[in-house]
Amino acid sequence: MGTNDTATGPVDTATVNTEVLEELFLGDWAPTRRVARELLKDSRFHKTEGLTKEDHREQALKQLHQLVAEGAVHRAFPEEFGGEDDHGANIAAFEELVTGDPSMQIKAGVQWGLFGAAVLHLGSAEHHRKWLPGIMDLSIPGAYAMTEIGHGSDVAALGTTATYDPQTEEFVIHTPFEAATKRFLGNAALHAKDAVVFAQLITNGVNHGVHCFYMHLRDDNGEVLPGIHIADDGHKGGLNGVDNGQIRFESVRVPRTYLLNRYGDVAADGSYTSSIESPGRRFFTMLGTLVQGRVSLTGSALAASKLALIGAITYGNQRRQFHAASTTEEEVLLDYQLHQRRLIPRLAKTVAAGFAHEKLLAKLDDVFSGRDGSDENRQELETLAAAIKPIATWHGLDTLQEAREACGGAGFISENRFTSLRADLDVYVTFEGDNNVLLQLVAKRLLADYAAEFKNADAGALASYVANQAGDRVMHRFGLRRALQEVRDTGDERRSANWFKQTEVQRNLLAGRVRQMVVDVAGELRSVAKLPPEKQAKVFNEHQYEIINAAKAHADLLLWESFTDALEKVEHSGTKQVLTWLRDIYALTTIEETLDWYLGNGRISSQRARTLSPYINRLLARVRPHAQEIVDSFGYAPEHVRMEVASGAEERRQQEAIEYYRTLRASSAAPVDEKVLQERSRKR
Amino acid sequence: MGTNDTATGPVDTATVNTEVLEELFLGDWAPTRRVARELLKDSRFHKTEGLTKEDHREQALKQLHQLVAEGAVHRAFPEEFGGEDDHGANIAAFEELVTGDPSMQIKAGVQWGLFGAAVLHLGSAEHHRKWLPGIMDLSIPGAYAMTEIGHGSDVAALGTTATYDPQTEEFVIHTPFEAATKRFLGNAALHAKDAVVFAQLITNGVNHGVHCFYMHLRDDNGEVLPGIHIADDGHKGGLNGVDNGQIRFESVRVPRTYLLNRYGDVAADGSYTSSIESPGRRFFTMLGTLVQGRVSLTGSALAASKLALIGAITYGNQRRQFHAASTTEEEVLLDYQLHQRRLIPRLAKTVAAGFAHEKLLAKLDDVFSGRDGSDENRQELETLAAAIKPIATWHGLDTLQEAREACGGAGFISENRFTSLRADLDVYVTFEGDNNVLLQLVAKRLLADYAAEFKNADAGALASYVANQAGDRVMHRFGLRRALQEVRDTGDERRSANWFKQTEVQRNLLAGRVRQMVVDVAGELRSVAKLPPEKQAKVFNEHQYEIINAAKAHADLLLWESFTDALEKVEHSGTKQVLTWLRDIYALTTIEETLDWYLGNGRISSQRARTLSPYINRLLARVRPHAQEIVDSFGYAPEHVRMEVASGAEERRQQEAIEYYRTLRASSAAPVDEKVLQERSRKR
Repeated sequence: MGTNDTATGPVDTATVNTEVLEELFLGDWAPTRRVARELLKDSRFHKTEGLTKEDHREQALKQLHQLVAEGAVHRAFPEEFGGEDDHGANIAAFEELVTGDPSMQIKAGVQWGLFGAAVLHLGSAEHHRKWLPGIMDLSIPGAYAMTEIGHGSDVAALGTTATYDPQTEEFVIHTPFEAATKRFLGNAALHAKDAVVFAQLITNGVNHGVHCFYMHLRDDNGEVLPGIHIADDGHKGGLNGVDNGQIRFESVRVPRTYLLNRYGDVAADGSYTSSIESPGRRFFTMLGTLVQGRVSLTGSALAASKLALIGAITYGNQRRQFHAASTTEEEVLLDYQLHQRRLIPRLAKTVAAGFAHEKLLAKLDDVFSGRDGSDENRQELETLAAAIKPIATWHGLDTLQEAREACGGAGFISENRFTSLRADLDVYVTFEGDNNVLLQLVAKRLLADYAAEFKNADAGALASYVANQAGDRVMHRFGLRRALQEVRDTGDERRSANWFKQTEVQRNLLAGRVRQMVVDVAGELRSVAKLPPEKQAKVFNEHQYEIINAAKAHADLLLWESFTDALEKVEHSGTKQVLTWLRDIYALTTIEETLDWYLGNGRISSQRARTLSPYINRLLARVRPHAQEIVDSFGYAPEHVRMEVASGAEERRQQEAIEYYRTLRASSAAPVDEKVLQERSRKR
Repeated sequence: MGTNDTATGPVDTATVNTEVLEELFLGDWAPTRRVARELLKDSRFHKTEGLTKEDHREQALKQLHQLVAEGAVHRAFPEEFGGEDDHGANIAAFEELVTGDPSMQIKAGVQWGLFGAAVLHLGSAEHHRKWLPGIMDLSIPGAYAMTEIGHGSDVAALGTTATYDPQTEEFVIHTPFEAATKRFLGNAALHAKDAVVFAQLITNGVNHGVHCFYMHLRDDNGEVLPGIHIADDGHKGGLNGVDNGQIRFESVRVPRTYLLNRYGDVAADGSYTSSIESPGRRFFTMLGTLVQGRVSLTGSALAASKLALIGAITYGNQRRQFHAASTTEEEVLLDYQLHQRRLIPRLAKTVAAGFAHEKLLAKLDDVFSGRDGSDENRQELETLAAAIKPIATWHGLDTLQEAREACGGAGFISENRFTSLRADLDVYVTFEGDNNVLLQLVAKRLLADYAAEFKNADAGALASYVANQAGDRVMHRFGLRRALQEVRDTGDERRSANWFKQTEVQRNLLAGRVRQMVVDVAGELRSVAKLPPEKQAKVFNEHQYEIINAAKAHADLLLWESFTDALEKVEHSGTKQVLTWLRDIYALTTIEETLDWYLGNGRISSQRARTLSPYINRLLARVRPHAQEIVDSFGYAPEHVRMEVASGAEERRQQEAIEYYRTLRASSAAPVDEKVLQERSRKR
């Protein structure tokens, strides 16, 4: 311990400017977030724990009406209809809803982010005039009927059919078998009047792939319309304020004009036209609006992580347990190394992911505002979202759980919200794109980009490229910088700890890993490129785990780059110092998690590897005194946090107990410990 | 891929005998488990999802009365009172309750495993006669008042006082400050008439440490008695059928004879006597009964893991998603490598932990039956439980979560129980001994045992011991075998994959790691042994993370040893083959998780390390065809599983869909894909 520790200098000199930090954390949409948070202090928007699903559903519906009344949910809609055409701000405000009640958030997301957005982005101007006003003011609650029992992630293979009948100029919407039943649809069980329904468009004997249709589900009395069969999905692991249901269609007819026809239309005679020739590209274009969900879930999961860390770190600074250094005063939990290990790396990752999310949101705003809506930029947005959403949503669950455990039994009581938030956010990891499926998309994109550059290269060229600059274009495209050189640890032991804290070393280690993993997998897959598809599929499957790990490594790098870029914006030196330690903790715990790879590939020497964990521990001790300031700078008020453990009650209780014992010791009434008596008699 | 794969031979030849396997999994208490499971098929014992906490609490109380009526909960009590004096069987049957409703289980655990067990183990014969009959037949529902708001894991520092008053021959039970309020007490909010209360026993001006007192809380009308203040802990993250509450005592007087006085008594004049002279040892003896909770939570978490794996593996064998190898038929989820990676190592660890738990239960039975109740054996039981309970309960949560995610949205619906079980079992990781605190106890024991052997050894002797036989006695004591030799990977590449599958190699790698970690930490701590306590505490804290990791490594080894021992009992060759692969998967994924350590310490060469992950992937593919048989052999009936995903409905739905498309393709009505049309026109 302590050898080569050249970094123990400025521990006490660094001071954080919490205003600077809060501004940095609030990011580009700070004004919108402040407005949204102000509104969410109102207890009408707060989750009531322990409601029945029936009561919770009614409460959530009521909250949606209140959000409409407060003008809180129309930012993404056209100015023509009273919206603001402001897509970035819309997502930022939407993310904050999670602090009130995730059920309210998801129900709002279904109504305006999925149902409304489908009409907005896939419909014509006529569709907008007809339905957007009612969707916006919630006089038309709606469902988004995409997922089926038998098809979730593989949307292209949906079973529901929409067959055009030129005789009546109608589409016949039909569920041909049970697995094609629409399922897990928010709003469907009770509240939805209408829905957008995804189905295979068939006309003139040709299947043009999945398209989106507007449908009426219930009449004005709330009665389900003929041919539509709705069942309640029942109680869920969380989000019980959302009335999920399943829908089966029995040859239900809708007018031809109910096809949301922006990217594909059917004329009265049944002839099909589309502005996008490739069915595949058309399909992905129509699904493009889904990326908003992925971006907003990312931000929501991070908001929940922040609440969890506020709770656990505040409590960790107040709760005492076991005597260690003193015989009269117990230790505060956060002074234990293990407690630091449990909470501070998660704090670092939350901050890193927060900066990455900010970049993602900016790109979303570029794409949806039309400032840069090019196909290429849209695809980059989708790949970025596909990389960051899995990492952020899993991280949210992990952080909520660790925070709950770090508060012991108190963490399990609903008034402290950890378990409640975790239960609600659980499904964020599999909906709006299953995390593992998204990571696979990321990996495929990395491999495709890589392959595109090497169509005609021979093995020798490939090898030299690998050594020198592989992945360069890919990196540039995602806003990443190229690692300047291959890192081969030369094992200069004198500067062991310092080596890890160098920005370029961190970049080279993290970027070098992604690059090498992509190259390795590509090499394996290259050898089978000429085999028949089923053989290729087999080999691809034999590398699926490796492929997913490459995508994760890519996401790790994205977070690190975002954190490092954010550091450049910070001028206040104390704040910058503490944030740099935090960035180092993110980088080094990430490297520590996959240290076997770095060792196995000769990127880090064994001697250096052994210094990593102790070095991280020292960094944790250094950030520890600033942990409270950092979580306080997330900018949440007590009305957002709403946890007994973060209320200061524990500090008062501990002080009362300390005072009690102090008074007792000073009095003559204090009982003597039997142990002390025994020791005395032994000495006699 | 595929290099050095000498192990692809017998894939298709191994057949599992599910009867043999089920018997092995049911273990020594198979008859008791079968009886308990038969009873738990009864829907009266099944959790109803979505109840209010009020209704759930009433249901749980009713279930406890039904358990009494069925004679299901008295096995641990003396024959004299209608029990069976059978402690092992009691725990085995108790563990099975988790399949019905974890709330019922925990409420039963509070009543008979904590409250009743305290009277049984800490009380006199008179106490038994007075209270055990009512406790057993539930006419006296009770609480176990140990935990306080300010003290959970550190029971010795509880604040509640019991001061003897010789004038009236009473103890005055008092809560001197708010942090000493008893909290999170099952049964306290509503149902408990009586309680056992842990408090500092003070008599004649001496504090004799924490003792246990019997108290009345409510009168026959359910009114709380004077001086007792009870509040409801309210809604929780799970286990809402248990009415947790908090209690504050305002100088409440109880008769002197209400002290449960087996290990310490106060005479009428206030003089204190105890059969155990050391206050420390007396305290731990009184707390000894708590080990039953730790053992039973281990078994319960494993039962829940088994249910989760039955659900996810059954569904993974039926649900299809994405075309890969075929253009007409989609892949079954479990054929994807990633899906195998997600589920099969968890299956392997569940089986390994099951065997370890079986050993733990046998030791508990030895101790509590008096067959081997020696102090040493009791301490070993406690250390074993402290090692295995954390691993098993965390594993339970991890498995439930991965299983839920592996079922996508269906995993989130309460009817599939993953989320429900996870919510209920969440608190198992911090109650009955916080997992991290327990691991620290394990590590301290490992270090103490190690230190005891080296009191007078010099550094040279130490070094040679380390090299040759360190930890030998410790290992023997815990039923572990000594690793025969230091493993230094010599890198014989020809036999790369085979090396990993050798039992002795696995043993040497896993045992060598524990040994080396203990030696390393001991070395660091040794250097400060003569410093003042606060300096020692500081150094200890600086190694806390390392220390906890050593304890985890020890637990990993315990699981591996148990699995390996169990293999020796299997005679049926196909079953033995498949179980051996599963054991190898447990060993190698465990090694893979800490591969950085093995690389950094030169135990595994870089070349060999790179073969590990592909080798594991091949083992997974080999076990995959047997996964269903393995989970079917856990011996749970559909009435225990109660998950739609495991009901076979998915298989029927998929077959219906396949049949629909088959018929459609064969007919003239099948629409042509637009893509196919475009390809045709391009070729023209």
